[in-house]
Amino acid sequence: AGTSNVLAGFHYGIPVFGTMAHSFIMSYEKEIDAFRAFTKTFPNKSTLLIDTYDDLAGVQKAAVVAKELEKHGFKLGGVRLDSGDLAEISKKVRKTLDDKGLQYVKIFASGDLDEFKIAELLEKEAEIDAFGVGTKMGTSADKPYVDVIYKLCETINKRGDFSPIMKLSEGKVTLPGRKQVHRFKDKNGNYSKDVIALVDEKTKGEPLLHKVMEKGEITIELPSLEEIRATAVKNLSKLPAKYKKLTNAPTYPVELSQDLDNMIQKLKKKLQSASKL
Amino acid sequence: AGTSNVLAGFHYGIPVFGTMAHSFIMSYEKEIDAFRAFTKTFPNKSTLLIDTYDDLAGVQKAAVVAKELEKHGFKLGGVRLDSGDLAEISKKVRKTLDDKGLQYVKIFASGDLDEFKIAELLEKEAEIDAFGVGTKMGTSADKPYVDVIYKLCETINKRGDFSPIMKLSEGKVTLPGRKQVHRFKDKNGNYSKDVIALVDEKTKGEPLLHKVMEKGEITIELPSLEEIRATAVKNLSKLPAKYKKLTNAPTYPVELSQDLDNMIQKLKKKLQSASKL
Repeated sequence: AGTSNVLAGFHYGIPVFGTMAHSFIMSYEKEIDAFRAFTKTFPNKSTLLIDTYDDLAGVQKAAVVAKELEKHGFKLGGVRLDSGDLAEISKKVRKTLDDKGLQYVKIFASGDLDEFKIAELLEKEAEIDAFGVGTKMGTSADKPYVDVIYKLCETINKRGDFSPIMKLSEGKVTLPGRKQVHRFKDKNGNYSKDVIALVDEKTKGEPLLHKVMEKGEITIELPSLEEIRATAVKNLSKLPAKYKKLTNAPTYPVELSQDLDNMIQKLKKKLQSASKL
Repeated sequence: AGTSNVLAGFHYGIPVFGTMAHSFIMSYEKEIDAFRAFTKTFPNKSTLLIDTYDDLAGVQKAAVVAKELEKHGFKLGGVRLDSGDLAEISKKVRKTLDDKGLQYVKIFASGDLDEFKIAELLEKEAEIDAFGVGTKMGTSADKPYVDVIYKLCETINKRGDFSPIMKLSEGKVTLPGRKQVHRFKDKNGNYSKDVIALVDEKTKGEPLLHKVMEKGEITIELPSLEEIRATAVKNLSKLPAKYKKLTNAPTYPVELSQDLDNMIQKLKKKLQSASKL
């Protein structure tokens, strides 16, 4: 894995990769001359973009260049598709390469790809070895904003006593009181469920909430990008596969503790009677 | 119109407005006490949020407070709905207010609204006087990224001659050559169509493209936010209403000039024959 964002590579040490541009090919009179020039610069790791004019004519030219490279002891890395029906084209391109003894040349696909399009291509048995994902990776196209809201769950009276409070609006009911979330694992160490409990309730799960700010100041040392990445990878590996399906995934179970549920029922009755005029 | 973004108000002089928070209401033991406190601070421009516990009980309390205000010579501005079936609730709330002689109290609605939800509410004859749009306005939720691509349309040879060039990939064909876009108006001065032409072609429309950068430097004086806004308002007012419908709007006509079309046909033939191996 890597990035095409050079600044990200510079700041975070992520390996930097780039792809061949259509304009590079278009700046030559003949497509094959562009391929020859590119492979001369990167003889052992070129991926030739073959869709500028016609994929099937493009792969023929890529094959010619691959054979020329073989004579000099080099191997063409791959060809790239960037438009059209990628599943169908990839099968024709694979056959053309194989017929010429170029089984080692990989097929790379790009073009507004996301996890759903990739899943569909794999479903159709597209002959694609690697996918390039750009825009949909660098931009949260499916969740362009994070809905962050604060909800009051406790008030303090003049004597300094705290009391739990909740909201009953349709579809927006809140959970009252000061809380802790506990994560439970199955016998293999995988995550099985979370339980939302009152903060002083005793449960057997691992508590997830830790104080990170106090009076507007951050009170912990912030982890590095590598540490954040390692934590995310570790957490994902412990989440059972069924929750990670792209479609029809079941909802990971999040339960309320008995004490929290009791408090909700009690408070609901009190608020409903107080809300009558 | 205004903004709830205080920094935008500070920088751009946009009027700043805020709304009442659920947590403000929840910090009081009784909802009606929160309403009384809020209207005491803003006696003539309060909009009371009535959905914290139950809209219909909430509007009853808002009506009581409105009558109390009347005794002091003040008028309640409005009530705000923020959850549930806004069309249905608004009708019940309007009836409650009208029955109490509070025809002047406006109904304000908010809650993840966008142009489509507002159109649907108006269609259902919701009794809503004003809409608050936040997240969907400040975030491009329907277009989270702008697809900006550069395409080569001309190359230069060793003798310094320019020649047009184009790309033929399926669904991604480009237009060759250096171009200008001309906008045409109907007899009322409204926009009727745009024509993409070669740069030195003579047409009767208004040319839209102007040079703004040269050798990486901006060559014009950038307009102010007010000027940008005025231009957008002017342009929108000249675009016929049919193109501004939210659903099933026809596509604004954009045509290719005869000279450009001729160049495309000629170049296509040349490239297709050159792309054969």
